[in-house]
Amino acid sequence: MARTIKLAVVGGDGIGPEVTAEGLKVLDAVLVGTDVTVERTDFELGAARWHATGETLTDDDLAAISTHDAILLGAVGDPTVPSGVLERGLLLKLRFALDHYVNLRPSKLFPGVPSPLANPGEVDFVVVREGTEGPYVGNGGALRVGTPHEIATEVSVNTAHGVERVVRDAFARAQARPRKKLTLVHKHNVLVHAGHLWRRTVDAVAPEFPDVSVDYLHVDAATIFMTTDPSRFDVIVTDNLFGDIITDLAAAITGGIGLAASGNVNPDKTFPSMFEPVHGSAPDIAGQQKADPTAAVLSVGLLLDHLGLTEQAQRIEAAVEADIAERSGPRSTSEIGDALAARVAG
Amino acid sequence: MARTIKLAVVGGDGIGPEVTAEGLKVLDAVLVGTDVTVERTDFELGAARWHATGETLTDDDLAAISTHDAILLGAVGDPTVPSGVLERGLLLKLRFALDHYVNLRPSKLFPGVPSPLANPGEVDFVVVREGTEGPYVGNGGALRVGTPHEIATEVSVNTAHGVERVVRDAFARAQARPRKKLTLVHKHNVLVHAGHLWRRTVDAVAPEFPDVSVDYLHVDAATIFMTTDPSRFDVIVTDNLFGDIITDLAAAITGGIGLAASGNVNPDKTFPSMFEPVHGSAPDIAGQQKADPTAAVLSVGLLLDHLGLTEQAQRIEAAVEADIAERSGPRSTSEIGDALAARVAG
Ligand SMILES: CC(C)[C@H](C(=O)O)[C@@H](O)C(=O)O
Ligand SMILES: CC(C)[C@H](C(=O)O)[C@@H](O)C(=O)O
Repeated sequence: MARTIKLAVVGGDGIGPEVTAEGLKVLDAVLVGTDVTVERTDFELGAARWHATGETLTDDDLAAISTHDAILLGAVGDPTVPSGVLERGLLLKLRFALDHYVNLRPSKLFPGVPSPLANPGEVDFVVVREGTEGPYVGNGGALRVGTPHEIATEVSVNTAHGVERVVRDAFARAQARPRKKLTLVHKHNVLVHAGHLWRRTVDAVAPEFPDVSVDYLHVDAATIFMTTDPSRFDVIVTDNLFGDIITDLAAAITGGIGLAASGNVNPDKTFPSMFEPVHGSAPDIAGQQKADPTAAVLSVGLLLDHLGLTEQAQRIEAAVEADIAERSGPRSTSEIGDALAARVAG
Repeated sequence: MARTIKLAVVGGDGIGPEVTAEGLKVLDAVLVGTDVTVERTDFELGAARWHATGETLTDDDLAAISTHDAILLGAVGDPTVPSGVLERGLLLKLRFALDHYVNLRPSKLFPGVPSPLANPGEVDFVVVREGTEGPYVGNGGALRVGTPHEIATEVSVNTAHGVERVVRDAFARAQARPRKKLTLVHKHNVLVHAGHLWRRTVDAVAPEFPDVSVDYLHVDAATIFMTTDPSRFDVIVTDNLFGDIITDLAAAITGGIGLAASGNVNPDKTFPSMFEPVHGSAPDIAGQQKADPTAAVLSVGLLLDHLGLTEQAQRIEAAVEADIAERSGPRSTSEIGDALAARVAG
């Protein structure tokens, strides 16, 4: 049965368009010989658009993007855009509007990749970061700004609905993995209200997944284990902000954000999910074919997996693993993309 | 001029009393030959007291503690006390009531200490963690608890007063160090209200310290550099929660929380400051003379420094450094304390 993937592409700024091009190259290659075709629409979003028009994401953009099956994003931002404008106005707006409640971040140390850890061991875990609640909701404010009496607040909002759905998703992912282990990361000894909601929810959902073992770590302790014993992790479920912090750390110990892929997933498929490398737009090396497109390519793998094209997703991961094992001298962005495309076509 | 230090001692639970005893042993030793004497009062606080009486910290306890010059705390807590009871009711209550707005956490990789990092380089920085604001204020709540409509919130409160005083303290500490570098760690691209208050405050205070160089890192990026290039840090100033997270990570890369000391400092000396190892009460090894008292001893060093006894503080750090360099086989808690006491007396 022939199938068309309607793909919204946001190349973005800096190295975003370069790495995205390689992701698309590999996507085309892996689909050769299948009856799946890709229908792309490019969206000009990011710093360039904001500089030109003052717009970040209009209602029309959002409506147009919503008609797609998935979104591939490169990277947005440059240092001349004030902090928060593109983050809140574009990236987080997409995550919230499209209800990306599962922010999926696998961390795997591929053989041959140098880790800053002396003895990393086998590292292969996935962080299920909540994507639509917590301190990211934008419910903050400030009073008497710029005076000695200024007060600024940030409110972390956590709901039973929001926590339960992401916890259940994380349990299901743990159950599908060989080790079947779930670690809740929070700080319930200090953030008692939010923390106890998370804890009670994990306890309540656990009986539905009797073969998944569950443990708990405070976020501060989790950072310790991330450096001293990362192999202990299998699936981690955590709130939006803690997830932001520990996934950068997880990327660091598995070879850097240049290799880290992520999915902003709406498991209910009520809106398109969005896949993006964890790295930023790196304006300093933009346009020089110096960026490593591996994270963008791995993000395409997560995208295919989300759309049910599991075999193709696995071929992408295997291609990356094989390519990394043989890496020697430096290659350009498109050389790496070519090599990966050749492998997945194989 | 003879001087008496009125010291409140909270040994606490688990290994707390053991390591505190060694801290006090070294304190006595380092003061031999000076005209400084220590007058101790023990306070029974922690899990044991809570189990016996249901009390965490009464108004009378607090009033009595407040009459002292400083507090030395071992560790409190055991797994049978519900999460949050001793944290909010005792530890954080002390930090807030005694206005410990500078939570001081030095991280130094002593020669000979194994780091989980392959190439840590020279690591010697100090985190100035805000101690009386942020998400730690306890301004959270929950509605419809236990129902599918539960909503739990946690409010991070940040004031110009609170941010400015800790930022100024951090600048002063940076200025007193050879590298004179200050890094603000926050997440101002998402937590825009709190983040911009922190950023504007650093910008506003910077001209008072023209020889201090300033940079900024998002908290997620800071965890990356902590593993890939920790020598870049000199003084870090950050909010209460970010500080909690990155100081455990900092302890991990410099040999573990067994070596990490901390001070909950009230620089204005309106109330006594409190010094404690970063580690917990480790009930599994309590009473077995297995705990490493080094963090407690280093906390005594921070205490002496706070009280102006700089030379004695330096002798303690030097003793720890020398002892670590010669460590070979395992020693008991009190053997380590004896060795350090002998060195500082030297
Ligand atoms: C750019 C920023 C808004 C974003 C986040 O904090 O989620 C980034 O750090 C990430 O992890 O995707
Ligand atoms: C025990 C807990 C309340 C405390 C904190 O979160 O501050 C601890 O983790 C610390 O860092 O001193």
